[in-house]
Amino acid sequence: MTATREPKPDLSAMLSLDRDSPRRSDADHLGRLISDPGARMIVLLGGKPVIRPSPDGQAAQLRRFSPNALRDAGVPLTDVFFLGLDPSTGSGVFALDMDADPADVANTSTERSAGALEQFFSPAVDLRSLAMQGVLSGDELAISATAVALANWTAGSRFCGRCGSAMVARDGGWRRKCVPCGRDQFPRTDPVVIMLVCDADRCVLGRQAHFPDGMMSALAGFLEPGEDIEAAVVRETAEEIGIAVERVSYAGSQPWPFPHSLMIGCLAQAAFQPLHVDTNELADARWFDRDEVRRMLDGSHPSGLWVPKPHAIAHWLVRRFAAG
Amino acid sequence: MTATREPKPDLSAMLSLDRDSPRRSDADHLGRLISDPGARMIVLLGGKPVIRPSPDGQAAQLRRFSPNALRDAGVPLTDVFFLGLDPSTGSGVFALDMDADPADVANTSTERSAGALEQFFSPAVDLRSLAMQGVLSGDELAISATAVALANWTAGSRFCGRCGSAMVARDGGWRRKCVPCGRDQFPRTDPVVIMLVCDADRCVLGRQAHFPDGMMSALAGFLEPGEDIEAAVVRETAEEIGIAVERVSYAGSQPWPFPHSLMIGCLAQAAFQPLHVDTNELADARWFDRDEVRRMLDGSHPSGLWVPKPHAIAHWLVRRFAAG
Repeated sequence: MTATREPKPDLSAMLSLDRDSPRRSDADHLGRLISDPGARMIVLLGGKPVIRPSPDGQAAQLRRFSPNALRDAGVPLTDVFFLGLDPSTGSGVFALDMDADPADVANTSTERSAGALEQFFSPAVDLRSLAMQGVLSGDELAISATAVALANWTAGSRFCGRCGSAMVARDGGWRRKCVPCGRDQFPRTDPVVIMLVCDADRCVLGRQAHFPDGMMSALAGFLEPGEDIEAAVVRETAEEIGIAVERVSYAGSQPWPFPHSLMIGCLAQAAFQPLHVDTNELADARWFDRDEVRRMLDGSHPSGLWVPKPHAIAHWLVRRFAAG
Repeated sequence: MTATREPKPDLSAMLSLDRDSPRRSDADHLGRLISDPGARMIVLLGGKPVIRPSPDGQAAQLRRFSPNALRDAGVPLTDVFFLGLDPSTGSGVFALDMDADPADVANTSTERSAGALEQFFSPAVDLRSLAMQGVLSGDELAISATAVALANWTAGSRFCGRCGSAMVARDGGWRRKCVPCGRDQFPRTDPVVIMLVCDADRCVLGRQAHFPDGMMSALAGFLEPGEDIEAAVVRETAEEIGIAVERVSYAGSQPWPFPHSLMIGCLAQAAFQPLHVDTNELADARWFDRDEVRRMLDGSHPSGLWVPKPHAIAHWLVRRFAAG
């Protein structure tokens, strides 16, 4: 990792794994890696990473299993993803997505009881919660984000969209192949624009109905076919709060594996003016001055309003505005 | 359109159509729009826009049909997309994707001969060629790009990836619904990073084996799950030419509907050094100094090398480097 970037503890899998992507298509290479005693596998249970919390609960690590041990225990290695090479050992790191619950797994297992498997795969914690709590390191978050995005894409790509046939995994889970019609499908990533609309002294924060109590964030929406990033920012801002954006500048991006998005953060300059909030999209939105935003960042807002934590790119957009 | 942007004649549907996206889900609204005598429909035949060239062949427009007239002529209106409202008339603009050739259409038509339909839908020209030749206006390119991306996505989304059932179109073609399993699918856009690697005085240009003779361009590759934009630039540069990037800066973006990508243009600073070119990905790549790049832009390169035309974001990255 040599590129300069903002010091944000995010979900970008850049720091720790060599993705080894040019050799994903070499099945013999992957077969040797997964059989090697040094191989390690993280596990998703119902989409949630299986972790090992520290005794005080303030930190956690992904649990790393031996693929050979899992196989010996009768765990079905159906949806396995090759995440890359551990640069310190050269060994392969894989992810296993088990959407069944532990009792179901035990039914297919010959050597372990359900109780033993539950212990094997416990606790499994929602990645969004893990990110929000800040208990995983940036590296562990990045590995988790890659695994969760691949698993979510795979669950929605069992069948060929063109011909309806069942597809099969290739390239360590990074490609799905429809043998009957020949189509190759690659992981899907949905670009989302997330923009902090601001004038010199104020910015717009809004909330959707499902947000946690008191949380306000930047506006966001999916980029559509035929749009560039700036066009999507202008359209979404007009739709959601009814105002025209004068200038758009890119501020940073972040993978967001819920289910498989790329958040593209922008600052959008606009004249201070009344908002026309689309109440189908937003429960509320209004202008906030810089002092109020600083209180939302440091937890001292008189009405208990707050902004997303540092795991989310919205935090960094707001922080940049707050800094002036 | 109020946001400042570089004056690039690109494929971004921002200028001319009101996408009217909040009302796409109102089937009655869309039904009234398409039945209105003012409605207009562009047609894709085998994925290619049907155009009307100017007599001298130097310019072209999309041909605009009346949906009522097409229906009366027995043309099956199966894959129809609502593109938005013409802001000057308030009428709806739609796209029809006909992947059959005109003779097939005539077989299902009751009132027109195959010959008449061929005339109806001729000429149909590949969008990439239209963009490269510069014969369509920016507005017409933008409308075409939206239609082609939606049509390409739809052709690959006939069946539900989760359960394999046939899906049906909703929201004017912007959503596909699996009734049996309840899944909604939305248009897919694949983020691609395209980066001009440069030091102070030189930049790296490369070519893939399938490029036209003499064309050299910026490096590019798909962003992967778990990556942010900067991480993808660093990884792709390392994979393709074996060097480390020191700083990444975003330069602009562009929709690229082949089949449904978003090109994210970046400048990537790197130290001048020998390249290790991955010959599986690239037929050639090397450093070019600023004078040589200027000759490639103005068509005076002694070996006949050239860079992509202004329809492509690569052109603007190279032009920015050439300007110093």
